[in-house]
Amino acid sequence: MENIELIHGEGGKYTCDLIRNIFYKNFGNSILLQGLDSAILELNKGKIAFTTDSFVVNPLFFKGGDIGKLAVCGTINDLTVCGATPLYLSVGFIIEEGFKIEMLEKIALSMGKTCEEAGVKIVTGDTKVVERGKVDSIFINTSGIGIINGYTAKKIEEGDKIIITGTVAEHGTAIGIERYNFKVQGDIKSDCAPLNYLLSYLDIYKDSIKLMRDPTRGGIGEALNEIFSISNIGIHLFEEKIPIRNEVKSINEMLGLDPLYLASEGRMLIVVKEDAAEEIERGLKETCNCKEASVIGKFTRERDFVYIENSFGGKRVLRSLDIQMIPRIC
Amino acid sequence: MENIELIHGEGGKYTCDLIRNIFYKNFGNSILLQGLDSAILELNKGKIAFTTDSFVVNPLFFKGGDIGKLAVCGTINDLTVCGATPLYLSVGFIIEEGFKIEMLEKIALSMGKTCEEAGVKIVTGDTKVVERGKVDSIFINTSGIGIINGYTAKKIEEGDKIIITGTVAEHGTAIGIERYNFKVQGDIKSDCAPLNYLLSYLDIYKDSIKLMRDPTRGGIGEALNEIFSISNIGIHLFEEKIPIRNEVKSINEMLGLDPLYLASEGRMLIVVKEDAAEEIERGLKETCNCKEASVIGKFTRERDFVYIENSFGGKRVLRSLDIQMIPRIC
Repeated sequence: MENIELIHGEGGKYTCDLIRNIFYKNFGNSILLQGLDSAILELNKGKIAFTTDSFVVNPLFFKGGDIGKLAVCGTINDLTVCGATPLYLSVGFIIEEGFKIEMLEKIALSMGKTCEEAGVKIVTGDTKVVERGKVDSIFINTSGIGIINGYTAKKIEEGDKIIITGTVAEHGTAIGIERYNFKVQGDIKSDCAPLNYLLSYLDIYKDSIKLMRDPTRGGIGEALNEIFSISNIGIHLFEEKIPIRNEVKSINEMLGLDPLYLASEGRMLIVVKEDAAEEIERGLKETCNCKEASVIGKFTRERDFVYIENSFGGKRVLRSLDIQMIPRIC
Repeated sequence: MENIELIHGEGGKYTCDLIRNIFYKNFGNSILLQGLDSAILELNKGKIAFTTDSFVVNPLFFKGGDIGKLAVCGTINDLTVCGATPLYLSVGFIIEEGFKIEMLEKIALSMGKTCEEAGVKIVTGDTKVVERGKVDSIFINTSGIGIINGYTAKKIEEGDKIIITGTVAEHGTAIGIERYNFKVQGDIKSDCAPLNYLLSYLDIYKDSIKLMRDPTRGGIGEALNEIFSISNIGIHLFEEKIPIRNEVKSINEMLGLDPLYLASEGRMLIVVKEDAAEEIERGLKETCNCKEASVIGKFTRERDFVYIENSFGGKRVLRSLDIQMIPRIC
């Protein structure tokens, strides 16, 4: 069989074959291979983080990644920003009848590679098949469990600074380019990557770190508005400090999109105490391969919203997203 | 707004409003309301079960349940059969642009009710919206975490017995009736229900219980073949002992479907030591409201497959499902 058929979703022989030949082969491990209704996990510590995310990205394959890599990274990063070391993932596939098994294998391979890179395991899963035309090729849900090692979010205060770990908007831009079949020069690709490797560096600074967020859907614009809604302290961004690649800027000008609202899938916003900001920024650049890490703003009671200022004094408000950007970027 | 629009999936203001007005309202709790990227959970014990399931059932509403109730019960039951007390669920919605918000609210209400009944909490979630025609109305993923209290699956031996906790095939039949728009008399409805309440009763017998399974997709026919593939000991079923409602039998005769391969969503298969079978069966009937609980078969080395025998000595083999039944029953 070259294609997924409805019988692959019936829970019988064909479902088993699919699980063995594609999933076990590409991301099998001793826990997953037990084949139980639930994975049985031994946890050393008592405090865990638990998260879920569904991925409906279109196209499935794009420069810098694919739906499988994205699904693994997205859930790893949601755990990471809660200060949790990601350990275990679940994966739920919803596949359209007629989907090429070869494509499924490419996706599974990519998931396996990303898990290995990040040191996490897919320990349980589920596969459903729906009739042709009832789902757009494949959707993937990943849920995840991580262990929290002492970090907790803290109350944000005036003067606290905001760091971004790298250039923004690359994932959203890469998807936009593919979606609109835009011919561009240069090498714009998704920044999609697991961020859990940052935790061991950030651990030294856990008393100085107030909050972490990954600016995915809605970009840093939306993420900072969410942070504002928690802190209730205005956010002042320094326009020139926000790292955006020139190609990303110019393409988005042409597409009429604001990169501040476009997703990154391998970046983190970190709110830190004022006195630790520069040291953390330097460490990110020097020891974490985050060469474009930058202190991009600070909390101030002078304003009651999120705003951005350039070096000429020009200011504009960054509101919570109430217009439609690109659908299905993740 | 009466309908879900793409903007509800952008992660901005509209997504937030939807989460607050529909999800927090219907299944909010102190953990979910923290609104973090991951739920932070304190667990008392170290051994947990973790599972995931996506639900694509068509139709969304059926006699005895709906996609929301099914999604909550399905994951609760997957934890239950691993001997884990279900505590926390995640929920991921993938919704079609144009879906009625009123319908979403009905589904969320049903999820909230089922969670309350079962004593579990939805602690984290995700919502995606895709363009009209790219998903069939709504799909739901639930993942779940439960605590294991000492039960472990054990090696199955010749002589071990198999108990079913109630009549079989009602969920699959109810969906079949709706799907084929079949006019029937009588009151056939899905048996969809959370089974975790059984754990406190079964706990007394945990040394006698070898394995538990919920016969969902593929029915008891497929579940028993899976158990056979683990045990490698033949399974002898007593046809007259398998509780099937008469209406279910006759409708499936007309539909040309074998009820032994149709899903139950509120029943459990329990493999027990021979000497404990009758006592457990009686307790299920008398104290657990499982009035139709029945010892339906035993493990025997006389045969090397799953087979069913009637009181006239007629035998047939129950093979692993390799034909297509009804797609999208869960």
